[in-house]
Amino acid sequence: MARQKEKEKLKIIPLGGLEQIGMNMTAIEYGDDIIVIDCGLAFPDDDMLGVDLVIPDVTYLTENIGKVRAFFITHGHEDHIGALPYVLERVPVPVYGMRLTLAIVEGKLVEHPVPDAAERRVVQYGQKIDAGVFQVEFIRVNHSIVDAAALAIETPVGTLVHTGDFKIDYTPAFGEPADLARFAELGKKGVLAMLCESTNIFREGFTRSEQWVGRNFENMFAEHANSRIIVSTFASNVSRVQQIINTAAKYDKKVVVDGRSMVNIITAAVELGYIQVPNNCLIPIEELKNYPKERTVLITTGSQGESMAALSRMAANIHRKVTIEPGDTIILSSTPIPGNEKAVAKVMNDLSLLGAKVIFQDTHVSGHACREEIKLLYALVKPKYAIPIHGEFRHRQEQREMLLEQGWNPDNIFVLRSGDVLELTSRSAEAVGSVPAGSLMVDGLGVGDVGNIVLRDRQTLAQHGIIVVVAVIERSTGQLVSGPDLVSRGFVYIRENEELVEEARQVVENAIQECLDRRIIDWPRLKNAVRDDLNDFLWHRMKRCPVILPVIMEV
Amino acid sequence: MARQKEKEKLKIIPLGGLEQIGMNMTAIEYGDDIIVIDCGLAFPDDDMLGVDLVIPDVTYLTENIGKVRAFFITHGHEDHIGALPYVLERVPVPVYGMRLTLAIVEGKLVEHPVPDAAERRVVQYGQKIDAGVFQVEFIRVNHSIVDAAALAIETPVGTLVHTGDFKIDYTPAFGEPADLARFAELGKKGVLAMLCESTNIFREGFTRSEQWVGRNFENMFAEHANSRIIVSTFASNVSRVQQIINTAAKYDKKVVVDGRSMVNIITAAVELGYIQVPNNCLIPIEELKNYPKERTVLITTGSQGESMAALSRMAANIHRKVTIEPGDTIILSSTPIPGNEKAVAKVMNDLSLLGAKVIFQDTHVSGHACREEIKLLYALVKPKYAIPIHGEFRHRQEQREMLLEQGWNPDNIFVLRSGDVLELTSRSAEAVGSVPAGSLMVDGLGVGDVGNIVLRDRQTLAQHGIIVVVAVIERSTGQLVSGPDLVSRGFVYIRENEELVEEARQVVENAIQECLDRRIIDWPRLKNAVRDDLNDFLWHRMKRCPVILPVIMEV
Repeated sequence: MARQKEKEKLKIIPLGGLEQIGMNMTAIEYGDDIIVIDCGLAFPDDDMLGVDLVIPDVTYLTENIGKVRAFFITHGHEDHIGALPYVLERVPVPVYGMRLTLAIVEGKLVEHPVPDAAERRVVQYGQKIDAGVFQVEFIRVNHSIVDAAALAIETPVGTLVHTGDFKIDYTPAFGEPADLARFAELGKKGVLAMLCESTNIFREGFTRSEQWVGRNFENMFAEHANSRIIVSTFASNVSRVQQIINTAAKYDKKVVVDGRSMVNIITAAVELGYIQVPNNCLIPIEELKNYPKERTVLITTGSQGESMAALSRMAANIHRKVTIEPGDTIILSSTPIPGNEKAVAKVMNDLSLLGAKVIFQDTHVSGHACREEIKLLYALVKPKYAIPIHGEFRHRQEQREMLLEQGWNPDNIFVLRSGDVLELTSRSAEAVGSVPAGSLMVDGLGVGDVGNIVLRDRQTLAQHGIIVVVAVIERSTGQLVSGPDLVSRGFVYIRENEELVEEARQVVENAIQECLDRRIIDWPRLKNAVRDDLNDFLWHRMKRCPVILPVIMEV
Repeated sequence: MARQKEKEKLKIIPLGGLEQIGMNMTAIEYGDDIIVIDCGLAFPDDDMLGVDLVIPDVTYLTENIGKVRAFFITHGHEDHIGALPYVLERVPVPVYGMRLTLAIVEGKLVEHPVPDAAERRVVQYGQKIDAGVFQVEFIRVNHSIVDAAALAIETPVGTLVHTGDFKIDYTPAFGEPADLARFAELGKKGVLAMLCESTNIFREGFTRSEQWVGRNFENMFAEHANSRIIVSTFASNVSRVQQIINTAAKYDKKVVVDGRSMVNIITAAVELGYIQVPNNCLIPIEELKNYPKERTVLITTGSQGESMAALSRMAANIHRKVTIEPGDTIILSSTPIPGNEKAVAKVMNDLSLLGAKVIFQDTHVSGHACREEIKLLYALVKPKYAIPIHGEFRHRQEQREMLLEQGWNPDNIFVLRSGDVLELTSRSAEAVGSVPAGSLMVDGLGVGDVGNIVLRDRQTLAQHGIIVVVAVIERSTGQLVSGPDLVSRGFVYIRENEELVEEARQVVENAIQECLDRRIIDWPRLKNAVRDDLNDFLWHRMKRCPVILPVIMEV
């Protein structure tokens, strides 16, 4: 039970989420018990060629597997749940979360079955779950997905608050505003430390309410009453979808949901009662043709310009069931995530070129707390220690600056790195060292088998391609008996550059012959000679340096 | 001479700049005369792996080389001058531009000498240049580089105005506000068509003045008087640099300019009198060590997160002469160009991790006209026809929408594509067809030798690497005498996956042996068998599909 006598120190160990946006995961440890908050993935950086996704290294958990009691998931976004299919295989313990959160997790586990011990347990706001010495309570917050929660964690040395991702919305489109009263109550009783998200710390003021988007939808639907309307947004933003459905129903339009992840999540949300569909206005895509265009609304994926998503396929005119035509109105109800700006712009241009009117202003609000909301939460919770989380270093550093401006003692703020161990007692906090932490790249079915050497090779291949040089040499005589042949990929178009290729072949042949004449039959040396000479030739000739891969075959 | 009797139709032929931001180039043709406005490059898209830059296809000019009279360059940014070194080789005609514009062009031609006929001719605001039947006048506008000009082009059928890139700054940091009077005068006399830029068409209102940035510098320098200040901005933004120097001088700090392009442009600008240096405050970087840190200011390149630029090297702690320390204040006086957001964020994080304070707000204004400025220019120039330029399709389409809102006749607005030919008389305008246009990729010394096949290979190589399969077969007997050997790059780390590689080798050996047993010595067929079987094996085993390159050597 929580609040037993204080014998040990409490450890807070972030295992991800501090070096980048994504891959959120924090271990809380006391004595023989560990609980883990969130288990997210990160999307690969631009230089991680061919990598599908990135997950946290959970060596610390597997090494302490006997201590791990449970995962507690704050909400159903990929950066909080995406690593579960991989991590639960190795750390099979119960997963606690709100209903929609676990419904989304369930969807992911269909393709990645995990051991039975990793059972999912649905909780409700206000419910308290015992896990070892800890007691964890889910507290209602607002976010760009419903069922988002902050966590209050009772520990033997005091109460922790973990905000998850949050905003404070006095008029959310679905459900209630964040449970400010509960945060205040916790603050009054005393909170040892708060782990608070930092995503929007650079934005002044308050994040706008989700209902503001709804009002703008109203205006846009009114203005384009005689147009087919296509709205693209995040599949998981159930409230946004609800508002689109409500507006469509009001203007007597039928709604089609398109895009695999959108259909999955919306179907689940309707079944679970998170979306109400008035007037039977939701129809299958096959029935689109039965209605005049101007009486239809499509809700689709692809707001980030993802090349295979429904909206991108419409933009590229390769969507099987929807053809964009002049007169269509397309609303991008989202903001590009950093890195996606050019892809989104391309989709918008392609849609415009097909004659559609593209609207991307006033149709999105952030799901993250701005500066004043973060101040408000600190004012309510009044933690003794602050641990900024969920953000790049500069975001968390800025949360620290904000607290200093508010008169905090700098010794009470901890801007940690993943793997850092923060030890707390009821009266002290100290970063005392670190445990293994980092990231594993997932490529296809392989987890962690693509490392830096492989990535560097991919980067070089991507730049100027590869030239493979093959020569067959007779072992006994040291004579060149076949080749050298040059084969290339991604270098130049061979058929239009036969002269260059022949010159290069000559350079290689000379290099090999020279080695053989000097009785160098040490293949690594010979390969180096080939590589050096060909490199020189290509650099001087065309200022390019493809990968050169000499292969010597002995017969 | 201009205004000769109207016999022919005037042609306006954009050769670039209409499908993307960059690569601006427009040909104006009448009878036997062609002049060309701007000659810019574009930076490669993310999927143009290994490509250094992109230039417009000028086949239309080379096919009409006898007609081409001159280039007129509006200002010295890469997207307006960057293709000159490549194009002047093939189209050697005089280049007209303002003094700083041509100084920057000159710098680029040092490494790419061009024929003598492509001589550079400096002009001044208000000057009129005859070129064939055309007369071209340079008109002062404001922009994020000094010496920016709009062009008024007298033609036999009427006057054209080409805005170049512009903003209207009533209080520029250097020089005068845009010559609104001249635009009004032209408008009063009658303008046939205006080609107007569209970059900021989605931004309401007016762009802020450059002096607003100067005032913010003042505040920041005052607040950080005891700190070394490092300001990163675009090398070509001479006014910005002037303001930094002024502020540094006021706070009695010495200024160092760092980064190759920054040093080049600032040196030229000082020599030409575009930058005034008060109190001898500019010092070489070698003298930095003679001053207390808090008495120094560095102005550097790297505001776009470019990996080799000075600021990025400081952030990565590999700058030879500058080490970032706690207490340093770093100001990013720029906005990330779309696509650079993540690189810029990385630099900011790395600088923060080294203890520096990073400021990126309130230190930049755009160089492009917002919506109200564009309206103002139209109100002054009152052209009969409008041709939105410089922008993606959606930007130019939005300029059209803006004009329609202002009561324009839709038939008088032309949203063109590169290569389109717009024919004008003094009373009519019509898009009548198109000429060859497009883009050429420059990779190293090669111009246009990287095409779609090579790019697609690079993309596949980048995703999952390559496996080369080499086998030696005796021609006479059809026996496998050596191999098959498998060599890979960018696939998996071989030493940690020997078992997998051996299994793959076995798959290949079986495929080859089966073919040979069936007396298939048709190498393409044999290679296909190898490729198919290995592909299947790898996909089922690891859900990856590297490039597979079988090489059969005969002896």
